[in-house]
Amino acid sequence: MDLKFKVIKEEKNTNARLGTFETKWGTHKTPMFMPVGTQATVKTLSPEELKDAHADIILANTYHLWLRPGEDVVDYAGGLHEFMNYKTGPILTDCGGYQVFSLAKPKDISEEGVKFKSHIDGKELLLTPEKSIEIQNKLGSDIIMSFDECPPYPVTHEYMKNSVERTLRWAKRSMDANKKRDTQAQFGIVQGGEFEDLRKFSAIETSKLDFDGYSVGGVSVGEDADTKLKMIEYATKYLPKDKIRYLMGVGEPIDLIDGVIRGIDIFDCVSPTRLARHGNALTLDGRTNLRNARFIKDLTPIEEECDCYTCKNFTKSYIRHLLVSEESFGQRLISIHNIRFLTRLMEDIRTHIEKDDLLEFREEFVKRYNKKSDKN
Amino acid sequence: MDLKFKVIKEEKNTNARLGTFETKWGTHKTPMFMPVGTQATVKTLSPEELKDAHADIILANTYHLWLRPGEDVVDYAGGLHEFMNYKTGPILTDCGGYQVFSLAKPKDISEEGVKFKSHIDGKELLLTPEKSIEIQNKLGSDIIMSFDECPPYPVTHEYMKNSVERTLRWAKRSMDANKKRDTQAQFGIVQGGEFEDLRKFSAIETSKLDFDGYSVGGVSVGEDADTKLKMIEYATKYLPKDKIRYLMGVGEPIDLIDGVIRGIDIFDCVSPTRLARHGNALTLDGRTNLRNARFIKDLTPIEEECDCYTCKNFTKSYIRHLLVSEESFGQRLISIHNIRFLTRLMEDIRTHIEKDDLLEFREEFVKRYNKKSDKN
Repeated sequence: MDLKFKVIKEEKNTNARLGTFETKWGTHKTPMFMPVGTQATVKTLSPEELKDAHADIILANTYHLWLRPGEDVVDYAGGLHEFMNYKTGPILTDCGGYQVFSLAKPKDISEEGVKFKSHIDGKELLLTPEKSIEIQNKLGSDIIMSFDECPPYPVTHEYMKNSVERTLRWAKRSMDANKKRDTQAQFGIVQGGEFEDLRKFSAIETSKLDFDGYSVGGVSVGEDADTKLKMIEYATKYLPKDKIRYLMGVGEPIDLIDGVIRGIDIFDCVSPTRLARHGNALTLDGRTNLRNARFIKDLTPIEEECDCYTCKNFTKSYIRHLLVSEESFGQRLISIHNIRFLTRLMEDIRTHIEKDDLLEFREEFVKRYNKKSDKN
Repeated sequence: MDLKFKVIKEEKNTNARLGTFETKWGTHKTPMFMPVGTQATVKTLSPEELKDAHADIILANTYHLWLRPGEDVVDYAGGLHEFMNYKTGPILTDCGGYQVFSLAKPKDISEEGVKFKSHIDGKELLLTPEKSIEIQNKLGSDIIMSFDECPPYPVTHEYMKNSVERTLRWAKRSMDANKKRDTQAQFGIVQGGEFEDLRKFSAIETSKLDFDGYSVGGVSVGEDADTKLKMIEYATKYLPKDKIRYLMGVGEPIDLIDGVIRGIDIFDCVSPTRLARHGNALTLDGRTNLRNARFIKDLTPIEEECDCYTCKNFTKSYIRHLLVSEESFGQRLISIHNIRFLTRLMEDIRTHIEKDDLLEFREEFVKRYNKKSDKN
C-alpha cells in the first residue's frame, strides 16, 4: 500500500525533514512518535486516552500476539483495530525478530528462520520470514515489517556481514510473502551494527526491493551515544529520500531530536509506559521520579505547561500517593503524561524544522533537560 | 449537616422505600450503591469513569488514608474531593473500625479505643472515637461515620452486649468530637450481631443521639444467609423511618435486593472492583469468569443490554486476552461494567419500588442470576 509519503520541507541546517503520509485513518505528520501496545493494549490506557494524548499511530508486537491470543483470534475479530477497538489511527506491527532474539533466546538461527522457546510456556517454535508476514497479514495492521535478524551488540564484522546478508535474503522472502500489499504497507529493515560498510550495503540493497518505508534496526542495543548516532547516520545516508525512515525502539527525548536531525521520520519505544510503571515522569526539566518524598504535599501538576488530562486534573501529591499505595491509576496518569510529553516534543520538533532552528531548539532542550534530571 | 432525607414512596408489599437526600453536589436517589475508593481511588478508575458508570457517591477508607498519605496531606490539598479531583458527587468515609479489626489485628481494645499494629509497617497505633472523627474532619468527606467496634463472628451474647454498650459510648464521644457537623453529616452505627435484643438496644439508643443517618454494621462477616437477613431486620425495625439507613460492606446483587426489601437505603462494597481483579464480571446470568477459555473468540460484549463504556466498545474475546496477558486495562474494563451493573440494579430496584412489584422483580432476578453463575 502506497503511503503517499511526501517530504514537505527539509530543514536548512540538518537532515531533518517535515513530511506527511496517508492511511485510511487520515493524513499523518512526521516526524512522529509511536507508543507501543505490546499485547494489543498500550499498557493501562484506553483508545480514547491515546487519542487525547495525540498519539497518531501505535505499534503492536507480532511475537506477543502470535503467542497470545494467537493471530487467528485477532483475524477472527476482524484484525487488530477491531480487536482492540482502536479506530482513530493506524497500527504498525513489528516482525517479531527483536522479541525472538531478546525475550525468547533463540536456539538456532538458520537460513530458514529462527528456532526458539516461547517465553510463556517454553514451547519450541520456528519464526520464518513467511510466518512473520502471515501473522502480520492476519493481524491486519496498516504497516508491517519485514523479518530481520537483530544481532547482539557487539559482534564481529564477519558475524554482522553474514547476518546482514541473510536479513537481506529474508527481506526478499518477506516481500514475496506479503499477500496484502494493497492494504498493508511494508517496511524493510536496515541492519549492520556500527559498521559503515555493512549499513551502506544493507541500506542500498534493501532499498532496491522498493519497500514503502525503511527501518533502522539494531540501535539502542547497548552501544555508546556516539556509536548510536553513527549507526543512524550510516543508514540514513544511503536510504532514498522519498521514503519514510523509521528508527526502531528509540524513545529518549534527546535521542528523538538527534534522530530527526539525522533524517528519521518515525520512532517507537515502550519508554513512556515503562517509565510510568516505575513512577518516572518525563518533563522539560528531565526525568522525575514521582515517588520521591519531596512531592508529598506538592499540589502542582507534573508540568504546569502540559495540556494532558493528567496535568490538567491531578497533582504530584496525589500521583505520588497512588504510586506509593501501588494503585495502577498512578501508572495510568503518568503514562498519559509521558506519551503526551513525547507527542508534544514531536510537535515542537516539527515547528522548529519549519523555522529552520532545530539545532538551537536542541541546545536549549538539552541544557534544561540535563540540568536537574533524576536518573533512576 | 442535614441531608434533607425524604422518603418519597414506600413499597406496598415490603419495607423498601424510595428516597432522596441532598448534598452540595446535588440531589441523590436512594436506594443507591457506593463503589469503594479504599486509598482515595476506586481501583483502576478515573473520576469521569465513575460518573459514566452512574456512581453517585463513593466511599473512602479512613484507616488507609490515615496511614497513607496521612490526613494532613489530604487536608493540605483541600480535602478528599480536591486531592482525588473527584468533583461529581459526595464522598462518605468509614470510621476505620472495620479495617483496624480485620486488617491490622487489634492488640488491645479498651474504653479509650483500639491499639493495633499498622498493616504497612507494623507501627503501634491507637485509634479512638476522637481520633477517627478528627481524621475524617480533615479528610473533608460529606458524610462521616462514628467509631465502632466490629466484633468477630460469632461471639457470645455477653461479649456482644459489652461491645454494643461500648460502641454506644463511642458513638456519643464521636458525636461530641465532630467539629464540622455543619458541613459533614454524621452517621451512627448499629451493632449487636445476630442477637435481636442487642440490635434493638443498639438501634434505639443510637437513634437517641440524633445522627443524620444510621448504619447497620457487622453484617456479612461470616454468618449464614438467614442470619444475615435477620441481622438487617432486627436493626431496621427499630431505626427511625425518616433517616437514611446504610448497610455496610454488602454488595452481592441478591443481598442488595434483600437489603432494600428490609428498608435499607445505601450500600457499599469493594466487590465490583475486587471481582474485576479476578476476572469476574457481574451479569444478569450470574457471575462470569472472563478468563474462561470459552470466551477466546466470543465477539459479544459482557452484556448485550448494558450501556456501560466496556459493553459498548469491547468484546469478551478482547477482555479475556487482557486478563490472560495480565494487562490492567482488563481489570479496568470489568470494574467499569461491574459498577454499572450494580448502579443499574439499583435503578431497576427503584423502578420496581415505584411499581410496587419488588418481590416479583426479586424472584425473576434470582431465578436468572442463579441459573448459570460461575461460582469462582
